[in-house]
Order: sequence, then C-alpha cells, then structure tokens
Amino acid sequence: MTTYRLHYFPESGNSYKLALMLTLCGQSFEPVWTDFGGGVTRTAEWRASVNPMGEIPVLEEDGVRLTQTAPILLRLAKRYGQFGAANEQEQFEVLRWLFWDNQKLSGFMATYRYRRAFTPSPDAKVQDFLRKRVDDFLGILAGEVAQRPFIIGDRPTVADLSLCGYLSFPVEESGYDLAARFPDVHAWLQRIAALPGWKPPYELLPGPRLKRYV
Amino acid sequence: MTTYRLHYFPESGNSYKLALMLTLCGQSFEPVWTDFGGGVTRTAEWRASVNPMGEIPVLEEDGVRLTQTAPILLRLAKRYGQFGAANEQEQFEVLRWLFWDNQKLSGFMATYRYRRAFTPSPDAKVQDFLRKRVDDFLGILAGEVAQRPFIIGDRPTVADLSLCGYLSFPVEESGYDLAARFPDVHAWLQRIAALPGWKPPYELLPGPRLKRYV
Repeated sequence: MTTYRLHYFPESGNSYKLALMLTLCGQSFEPVWTDFGGGVTRTAEWRASVNPMGEIPVLEEDGVRLTQTAPILLRLAKRYGQFGAANEQEQFEVLRWLFWDNQKLSGFMATYRYRRAFTPSPDAKVQDFLRKRVDDFLGILAGEVAQRPFIIGDRPTVADLSLCGYLSFPVEESGYDLAARFPDVHAWLQRIAALPGWKPPYELLPGPRLKRYV
Repeated sequence: MTTYRLHYFPESGNSYKLALMLTLCGQSFEPVWTDFGGGVTRTAEWRASVNPMGEIPVLEEDGVRLTQTAPILLRLAKRYGQFGAANEQEQFEVLRWLFWDNQKLSGFMATYRYRRAFTPSPDAKVQDFLRKRVDDFLGILAGEVAQRPFIIGDRPTVADLSLCGYLSFPVEESGYDLAARFPDVHAWLQRIAALPGWKPPYELLPGPRLKRYV
C-alpha cells in the first residue's frame, strides 16, 4: 500500500485537487503544511532540492517526490481504477479538459484570486485583464456542464476534479458568486460535492492561513 | 493512411506545434488558413460548429475535427511511434512538461507576444506582469536544457515540440533575444532545428499575416 505525504498550502487549488482525489479514492495522506506565504517555494533551495518548477503541491509516494498536479491525477486514476477514462476516446477528452483547465480556467482563476484576495493592492488593469478571461472561461465551462452531468459524460473524472479545484473555495476569495452568475457551474459543483467522501478545501488542507485582504 | 487538414493562422505557435509534428513524422497536411485577425474564432458560430473552446488550431483527421494541441501531439506520437515516451516513467515526464508548457511557458509567451506584436497599444502594466513571468519560465527551461540535450533526456519528444512552439518565431515579435539572454535555450532550439525535415513557422504556415505593430 502506497504511503502519501502532500506538501501544500491551504489556499492552493492544485493542492486541493490532489487531496480531494486521494480522499475520494479512500486514501489517506500525511499533510505537510508549507510556508508558501513566507516564500519557501520561491527560494533557490526549494527549486534545487524539491521542485525546479518552483511550484506546489508536491506529492510524495513512498518517499518519491512528484510534481505537476494533472499528471499525478492521471497516475492516481490508473492506480485506483477511479475517475479515469474507460477507453481511448474518453482519455482524449479527459486530456483535452485537463489541458484546457490548466492553461485557461485554473491558470487564470488561480492568479486572479490569489492577487485579489491574498496580495495587497493588486494592479487594477492586470486584474481587469485576468477577470475578463475568467468570465469567458466560466461561460465555456457552463455551456458544457449544462449539457451533461460531468465534463465528459455521466461519470466524474479527474478532469472534473481538476476543473473544480479553484472554484471550490469561498466566494469572498474569488469574488465570483457562481450560484448567481453561473448557475450551471454551481449545479455541477454540487454534483461533485455529493460524491461519497467529498470534503471542502479547508477541511482537507488544515493549518495557518494566508492574510486575506478582501 | 490518415488525411490531415490543419485549420490555423500563421502566427499561432500552437498551430506550428502540430504542423511541425506532422512534418517531422513525414506526414503532409492541407493547410486551411483561418481569419483569426478578423475574429472568426471568436464568433458564436465558430464556437457552436467548430470548437466550443473558441480556439485554434483545429486538426481534421479524415474529416473528424480535433482540438487541444497537447492531446493531439500525444495521439500523433502514438500513431507514428515518434517523439513519444518509451515507458511509463518517461510518459509521466512528457506529461509534466506538456502541462507546464501549456500553463506557463506557451501560455504566457503566447499572450505576451500577441499583445506586444499584434495589438495596438497594449497596456504596459499588463505587459510587465506577463513579461516577468515569461522571464521566470525561460530561466526554468534554461536550467533544464543546460543539463541534457532535450527536455526529458537524449531524445526529442512532443514535450520539446510543444515547448519550442512560441520560441521559434522571429525575435521582433516577442522582443526576446534568446541567443543573448538565454543561450542554453537558444542552443536547445538549434538542436530541434537540426532534426531532419524541420522547418520554421512561416514556411509551414503560409498565407496572409496579421498586422505587426512593433
């Protein structure tokens, strides 16, 4: 049986994606809180010794350190036979949405929310640039999950767990009232929250929190 | 034998990634120039009939339309037995760099370069925000390709073809003189350009060009 240690900080949607996947697959993990706010992951030492990509989360599997959330999700899906694709065509769809999520939805929402909630005085022009993109991406997601229960069909996959990551945090942080503005996205999030064993981010990712400015 | 049609616009690094992959695998494709500058891919019709993600490129395989560059690269690698991973560990590494490229390097360089070169009067604050990130990402890439010929080892993979996409356009467009500022990245690009059959973007992607403002 694999032993997991998850290096995370509580506000990280990518950390939440892995914590949620492990939890929904019935696995436990040792939570290793990391001082992201203190700049640990931006140090030369972190890049040299933990992750050259300078990112968090890091998942240890029996002591082996893995990075990049989406490939880890695919690896766990294969290991546990859950939330994966049933055939090659589904696998292509899962990959499409994982890439779209990383470049578009999670990518921009992560940056927009982090600057909005956890940094003092973010530049208004930059925030406006980011917010317009997030609006567009949420509209695209809404159009898809209005048509079927989960992103590629009737079953939830790691693509759903990826897409929901940054949308599962409290509305105060993103400023996006999804229930009011994107009801189809809200309904899809509720379907994910109804999965057996589901827990919200700050229950799975405990510990000291970043200062919030809004 | 599969027949390919590639919907593209010449300045698109993602289109170049697919054109280059097909070419290096010895395949030909019918180039379908698209009026991106005229806003075609942002119309409701394009989203409804071609690609709900509102993106380009689109690759037709025997008439079947596929979107999202990275999953298409993986699919082609499998079909032609070239530029793919040799085992599960390599596959994990290829995926890691494909995701990193999409979210980070290509994601930000594409936006930075497009705004800098092909839009009038981009906001300086937004450009500054984007450029700082591109600087960081190029530094990370340089650190890796200084250690080995290609991103995951001695052989080029689709991860290299993805990472090189937006870095293969003329310096006037990005403003990044890679030879001077990131010589390790420049040397790696030269290793890619030495692959049999390699061609630069505007040779593989002909047709009317966007107005350039710099």
